[in-house]
Amino acid sequence: MMKFAKFFLLLILVSSCSEKKEKSTPENDSGHPNLILTQQGVKDIRANLGSIPIFDKTLENTIEEVDAEIELGIEVPIPKHLSGGYTHERHKRNFLILQKAGVLFQILEDEKYAIYVRDMLMAYAKLYPNLPIHPQTRSYARGKIFWQCLNDSNWLVYTSQAYDCIYEWLSKEERDTLENDLFIPFANFISEGNPQFFNRVHNHSTWGNVAVGMIALVMDNDDLLERALNGLKTDNLEVGMKDNDGGFIKVEGQKVGFLANIDEPFSPDGYYTEGPYYQRYAMYPFLIFAEALHNVKPELNIFDYKEGVLLKSVNTLINLSDADGEFFPLNDGQKGMSYYSRELVTAVDIAYHFGGNNAELLSIAKKQDCVLLDDSGLAVALGIKEGKEKLFEKKSINLSDGPNGDQGGVGILRSEGLELVFKYAAQGLSHGHYDKLSFSLYENGEEVIQDYGLARFVNIEQKGGGNYLKENKTWAKQTIAHNTITQNEVSHFGGEYKVGSKHHSELHLYDDTNPQVQIVSAKETNAYPGTQLHRTFAIIDDEDFEKPFVVDIMNVTSESENQYDFPYYYLGQLMKTNFEYTVPSVLVPLGKSNGYEHLWKEAEGKPASDNTTFSWLNHGNFYTLTTAADAEDDLILARIGAKDPEFNLRREPALIIRRNAKNTTFASVIESHGNYSTVSEFAVNAYSNIVSLKVAYNNDNYTAIQIEDVNGKLKMLLLANSNSSNNNEHKLEIANNEYKWVGPFTYITIN
Amino acid sequence: MMKFAKFFLLLILVSSCSEKKEKSTPENDSGHPNLILTQQGVKDIRANLGSIPIFDKTLENTIEEVDAEIELGIEVPIPKHLSGGYTHERHKRNFLILQKAGVLFQILEDEKYAIYVRDMLMAYAKLYPNLPIHPQTRSYARGKIFWQCLNDSNWLVYTSQAYDCIYEWLSKEERDTLENDLFIPFANFISEGNPQFFNRVHNHSTWGNVAVGMIALVMDNDDLLERALNGLKTDNLEVGMKDNDGGFIKVEGQKVGFLANIDEPFSPDGYYTEGPYYQRYAMYPFLIFAEALHNVKPELNIFDYKEGVLLKSVNTLINLSDADGEFFPLNDGQKGMSYYSRELVTAVDIAYHFGGNNAELLSIAKKQDCVLLDDSGLAVALGIKEGKEKLFEKKSINLSDGPNGDQGGVGILRSEGLELVFKYAAQGLSHGHYDKLSFSLYENGEEVIQDYGLARFVNIEQKGGGNYLKENKTWAKQTIAHNTITQNEVSHFGGEYKVGSKHHSELHLYDDTNPQVQIVSAKETNAYPGTQLHRTFAIIDDEDFEKPFVVDIMNVTSESENQYDFPYYYLGQLMKTNFEYTVPSVLVPLGKSNGYEHLWKEAEGKPASDNTTFSWLNHGNFYTLTTAADAEDDLILARIGAKDPEFNLRREPALIIRRNAKNTTFASVIESHGNYSTVSEFAVNAYSNIVSLKVAYNNDNYTAIQIEDVNGKLKMLLLANSNSSNNNEHKLEIANNEYKWVGPFTYITIN
Repeated sequence: MMKFAKFFLLLILVSSCSEKKEKSTPENDSGHPNLILTQQGVKDIRANLGSIPIFDKTLENTIEEVDAEIELGIEVPIPKHLSGGYTHERHKRNFLILQKAGVLFQILEDEKYAIYVRDMLMAYAKLYPNLPIHPQTRSYARGKIFWQCLNDSNWLVYTSQAYDCIYEWLSKEERDTLENDLFIPFANFISEGNPQFFNRVHNHSTWGNVAVGMIALVMDNDDLLERALNGLKTDNLEVGMKDNDGGFIKVEGQKVGFLANIDEPFSPDGYYTEGPYYQRYAMYPFLIFAEALHNVKPELNIFDYKEGVLLKSVNTLINLSDADGEFFPLNDGQKGMSYYSRELVTAVDIAYHFGGNNAELLSIAKKQDCVLLDDSGLAVALGIKEGKEKLFEKKSINLSDGPNGDQGGVGILRSEGLELVFKYAAQGLSHGHYDKLSFSLYENGEEVIQDYGLARFVNIEQKGGGNYLKENKTWAKQTIAHNTITQNEVSHFGGEYKVGSKHHSELHLYDDTNPQVQIVSAKETNAYPGTQLHRTFAIIDDEDFEKPFVVDIMNVTSESENQYDFPYYYLGQLMKTNFEYTVPSVLVPLGKSNGYEHLWKEAEGKPASDNTTFSWLNHGNFYTLTTAADAEDDLILARIGAKDPEFNLRREPALIIRRNAKNTTFASVIESHGNYSTVSEFAVNAYSNIVSLKVAYNNDNYTAIQIEDVNGKLKMLLLANSNSSNNNEHKLEIANNEYKWVGPFTYITIN
Repeated sequence: MMKFAKFFLLLILVSSCSEKKEKSTPENDSGHPNLILTQQGVKDIRANLGSIPIFDKTLENTIEEVDAEIELGIEVPIPKHLSGGYTHERHKRNFLILQKAGVLFQILEDEKYAIYVRDMLMAYAKLYPNLPIHPQTRSYARGKIFWQCLNDSNWLVYTSQAYDCIYEWLSKEERDTLENDLFIPFANFISEGNPQFFNRVHNHSTWGNVAVGMIALVMDNDDLLERALNGLKTDNLEVGMKDNDGGFIKVEGQKVGFLANIDEPFSPDGYYTEGPYYQRYAMYPFLIFAEALHNVKPELNIFDYKEGVLLKSVNTLINLSDADGEFFPLNDGQKGMSYYSRELVTAVDIAYHFGGNNAELLSIAKKQDCVLLDDSGLAVALGIKEGKEKLFEKKSINLSDGPNGDQGGVGILRSEGLELVFKYAAQGLSHGHYDKLSFSLYENGEEVIQDYGLARFVNIEQKGGGNYLKENKTWAKQTIAHNTITQNEVSHFGGEYKVGSKHHSELHLYDDTNPQVQIVSAKETNAYPGTQLHRTFAIIDDEDFEKPFVVDIMNVTSESENQYDFPYYYLGQLMKTNFEYTVPSVLVPLGKSNGYEHLWKEAEGKPASDNTTFSWLNHGNFYTLTTAADAEDDLILARIGAKDPEFNLRREPALIIRRNAKNTTFASVIESHGNYSTVSEFAVNAYSNIVSLKVAYNNDNYTAIQIEDVNGKLKMLLLANSNSSNNNEHKLEIANNEYKWVGPFTYITIN
């Protein structure tokens, strides 16, 4: 089968091992490798080979992969394509294989790998001096090998490791050629040559800084290392410049360089402000360079920097994944990215080895079924071999955002299979979405109420070169694309990055101490000047219900009358509503701009009673949203996909509650109940357990939600909107009943 | 958690076993049980218990399930609800548990199970004599316990087995009460009381016949047995009567009863004309009654009836499933139904035990991880224990339709992970769809080009009582809902069941002998009088392609100029087309009737060249359709969901090629190529391997399709449309090249 596309097939080759070895001894046994592999590490690895299954297996796969590439021969084409195109993918493949070949040379002592690395690097050294800027013009910082400096930096981060592995095997003359013709001009180009790329706080710059830093460490070049750690001294950039994504390049007074890129985007809790998808992307350069600095410049104590935030962030990132290990797609995030990615293999292994051998990380490594071929991978392999792993138990967690942890955050409530992700964070730099107080809901790793994620097919060339699609801006970033309030059909902060970047929501309350009633609550006052949004989520595990349920309270207070649109992007098949709706014979978009132009209005209705109920079936589970209705609510069933001239968007549905009001409370419960099997064809517990839900009390000080279940039992959730410290005593009279409690909230069954 | 809904929870309880036993000895040890369990079987089971893992596990689960129900107590409510509602589900639960309790009594010799069965049956005997017809009026044959006689029959089929298990434990007086107050009037009601239900060839009637037959065997009642086997002698039904689904009740001259229900719907290949979903449903009564007849009336040689078609049909049905064991949803079929269903556990175990111990069936039983608690289940459990199972290898297969195998059929071509299902069958009784020469395509168990299946949520009460939705008729059965030609926006046979029932397509060619080139081809001349449709599919495994690809040739010849609409219901995300299309700012339906009213027109374009290409991504695989274009083709991107006032339809897409012509050939290739991972973010082999495809030759005698791949290689598929026997020699000149071959087709690489 198939002889036409060996190159592509090789991309996916993983199989058994060929173990022919020709041994050769490096000329000199002091010094290199010292960057990621160390000389002691290499000795330990060799001593354990054959008895560390996960390491041995990774090694076999790597040998298979690299040998196939060596067989194919060296290809260093003239750069031409965007992501997904041939030259892009070939050069990307080259740096990944170079790094692996370097490692194989060290571990197996087989000179063919050193020869391959040398020859490939020499081919680049021959090509590079005469290369113009890449012909594709899309980037604000065009590279030479790739269309953007970002990918050039990726190249150098990996290639530095390969160089370190064969450093001592090369002659002085060969090293001089590589450094003078390739590495030094390469490092200069992505730094001095592109200050708008290098001198920022951004994941792009992190890669740039690390690229320069890695090669600096191999070459023992202090100037470049200083540049990597602290940025260019002068950059002549103007404040207010923007990149392709609309992100600011120069911010007045902001520090730059690798250390600043740790200081700024990471909160003390290890949350990375761009969101988990980019945190994953950034983890590799952060951790690999940290490991290199630890090895070569131990005096910097890099793993202790900012109270050890780099290693802590690995735990944080794992906590930002669902039950299947897929990251929550906050801000720009491509769905499906998970802790099975190569970046997380790096992150988990390094965090285990340098972070105190946390046995829970071994269970993640075991799932990854792959380790780094270095000292940290060896440590993990030995840990697994010795059966040390413990379950990584993801619990409810609140993660602050901002360099000092005071710019809002992300709260994740977990209960049985449910995971609720509440975003009340800062803007998230240029990858941020305008979605203050939005949320998403998962059950057993499946999305129930989705966050759309980004509008992009990363590296799929036929979809806009694999880059951000224009719908990312017109749809995915807009507020109406998210499960939160849009006021008067305008996105938060008017959809202006400059404004959004100045603000963040404020945590009101987070409490997961009682597993029966977990709460997170935050306020947003800047998204719409003159309007305060205060949203509270609770997950309540009540024995009168089959499963825990979600309470969602959005209190809106405003100086003016407004239209509030409040969507729930449910996934699945609509089962039943308690209200009548009409479907139009012709579909028109919901609006003209701010994302509304991308929504078809599929149906419209009015509440039938004091409650609106909406049930759907998804992945074999039934769900019901029960919400306190205003008789004048418009209940809109919408679907994504209007004004989508290239079919870039997914045709997924939403229920939108539209209400005209000045002050109002949207109070809802989302239940997961029962299940349906297409094999047994049993529909079990297919109906909601709730007959009614109402806002029993609401003012600046208190909100009370009353729920009646199908057996007539009354439940009350009482919340203090102010004076909400743990010791405060509260007293409230509702319908002639007096309620007393201590602390910010209480949940009771009345009868 | 949850105390409110024990009943529902019990429905899904499966866990460990409680094995307390009180032994009791039946009064009399001759005779019963003899229906499904036999006395020798019970002895053998007891002797092997504890050493037959899959049987022991099923037994443990059953004990757990039945004990929980016994704990809950007996509930025999007054019938009231439709499917999915309480009384329906409770009575359904009762008969399933009764059958299991009877078995447990026999195997465990614990009298509590006999007491439970007796008491439950006595409760029914008390209720039944005074029961009116069920209050729900939806059925053409209303039951008493359930809303339709069909479910009443289900009840009796299971309950007969329970009665057999405790027959000898009961006193004569108790038996008389049960028979006179319950079983005999019950059997009379569903037969004499409902001849329109009982005296048909239909899966409903099969259940009715079997219900009466099973209780007849237990009671040794020859009159009822005769009625079961050969139907009511007189029924006073008028020819032409229809049921709820539009199916004919009485057909002139048609035999009725159980034997006729084997004769008529099963082809000699074991294909059941209603399709696999209903075959699965019917398998249980067919096989359980066959087993009972084999045990009680061995002289009937029921397993040899019609050359052993009943047992053969089990193999056939397994072959009608995809790689995950899910049945192809031909005609009315709910997706997701699979060989993991309880009916298939029965079918597989019985087919193994009574059909010569085919070791391949053991591998299916092992996946099912569950066996019947009877003689056949014991045989399977012993076979698995002894490691006898072999892989059930599903190969390409052609299955004839019709009692004598001469009414068209279904051809399934399989190659590597691809499965192509081509339907050229008869109407399929009342569950048939108007989709002559339609197809669907699967890869690794995922749908690539889908058949919609039915429009129904079986047993989900909030969706139309769990019954057929009106969209089943207005959408799912219509031709435009399928991957075949609709002429002038009218369904095949004008959508008239009476007309469609008279006709079937004709096989032209089926050949799977060469795994490199497998072909199926059929003609349809009656769907549109005056128009002949001739469709040929080939799956070609060519070493110049990454994977096997599908060739699809639809030759249309007509006496008149017509509009031909030819849809491909692809699943997934559109990647790229080679033609321009415009998306409207307002969506309108594609038409007014015959299913067109349910399609939104999302985009429209014209071919950009001699070929139209259309690529999409689904479940991480890329697909491309390349089709020979007519410059005047309308290329329509449509989506299901218009005129859907209750959101009963799935919003899934189609590419529709619309062509106005008299005679024309639609020639296409569908490739599966490459893959994309959201974890590695590599897009591998994302483009088609084809640069052009053309109809190089076409007349009544020959069709030739020429394909050029990206490396400039030319491929030719040559087909004889007549004289297509295996020994015929053919000679054809195309563009000054002469092609010679023997047999109905050849595939060659020209350069």
